[in-house]
Amino acid sequence: MTMAPDLLQRLCEAELARLWGSQSDGAHDLGHVRRVLANARILALNEGGADDAVLVPAAILHDAVNLPKDHPERHRASVLSAEAAADFLAGLADYPAEKIPGVAHAIAAHSFSAGIAPETPEAMILQDADRLEALGAIGLARMFHVAGQMGGGLFDADDPLARRRPLDDRRFALDHLEVKLFPVAAGMRTTAGRQMAEERAEWMESFRARLLREIQ
Amino acid sequence: MTMAPDLLQRLCEAELARLWGSQSDGAHDLGHVRRVLANARILALNEGGADDAVLVPAAILHDAVNLPKDHPERHRASVLSAEAAADFLAGLADYPAEKIPGVAHAIAAHSFSAGIAPETPEAMILQDADRLEALGAIGLARMFHVAGQMGGGLFDADDPLARRRPLDDRRFALDHLEVKLFPVAAGMRTTAGRQMAEERAEWMESFRARLLREIQ
Repeated sequence: MTMAPDLLQRLCEAELARLWGSQSDGAHDLGHVRRVLANARILALNEGGADDAVLVPAAILHDAVNLPKDHPERHRASVLSAEAAADFLAGLADYPAEKIPGVAHAIAAHSFSAGIAPETPEAMILQDADRLEALGAIGLARMFHVAGQMGGGLFDADDPLARRRPLDDRRFALDHLEVKLFPVAAGMRTTAGRQMAEERAEWMESFRARLLREIQ
Repeated sequence: MTMAPDLLQRLCEAELARLWGSQSDGAHDLGHVRRVLANARILALNEGGADDAVLVPAAILHDAVNLPKDHPERHRASVLSAEAAADFLAGLADYPAEKIPGVAHAIAAHSFSAGIAPETPEAMILQDADRLEALGAIGLARMFHVAGQMGGGLFDADDPLARRRPLDDRRFALDHLEVKLFPVAAGMRTTAGRQMAEERAEWMESFRARLLREIQ
């Protein structure tokens, strides 16, 4: 018998709290995790063919090992998270063991920097659901917030669109749109994810246009 | 004879670079200073009655002493900047000594936290010009960036509008709209500044509404 989704979600959240409790970078955010799960469920409804018993633990535990953005092992965080999720689910008496590889693949493949192509519906949905959080108003808020955390500036006041210099999103938060966020929006895997990402990318362009009018 | 505005601007910028060179908080931003001067000139054109020979040094040197946001003497930064500007101008052979108190008053009164009411056209214009930088797209970018620098979060995922808790913009960047930015927009001194601030405040409300749709 498969576990009820609500119970599975609560057990995974408890495990996440336990795993995060032993880390200390302050970047953990249960709100983000729940929004990714909510996005994933919307995409799954539109896409069809996804297994909730895979998607729920994958979404909840996708950032189980959450290394700081400037950590040298950062690109391995999703693989380490997949291992932590697999270990946890293997110890749950009522969780079907045959679903564990699907959870681990979805988590390992969700991250941009892991360079692993998502091969299952659940993996494509999780990747899109997580990437939606990097786009739109929430994406811009996070972009400027991360720049503040990392000691970067807002934009290059002399050349905000990088017409006469290479893009550099470590120095200038605004460059992150071209370096990462517009490419992320263009690389969505699901139909509903692509539509939502396009709308968010257009809105981010209008934000940038407004910012340029204000500063020039 | 009065000094040409261009020469005065260059001399003040050189002094600013010298003063900032001896500080180390990394928050200095010549782009901000030049935008405040540009805003001040737009407001002065609309308002009339402002003296460019006061407005230019006041705008360039308004953040000459720029203490970090969590510095205990932060509320005195504008008074210290006014003193630094007065000292500098007193040493400029061609700058009219009778204009120095007007510059010092405009700088001292520009800051929210100084609690000094602006009493001259130049002081009102400088305060509005600086506050415009806290509003609109540039204002939101700075709001989230500062939260990242100070270790605060983006918003309270359970209660983003603070319906069931006190506002706390140290913990939640989004709270800063109600704590400071909407009140700043409502307190503009000049007619043109008030119109620009109203438009920016409305846009910030639409940003917040969009963010809430995305996260809920």
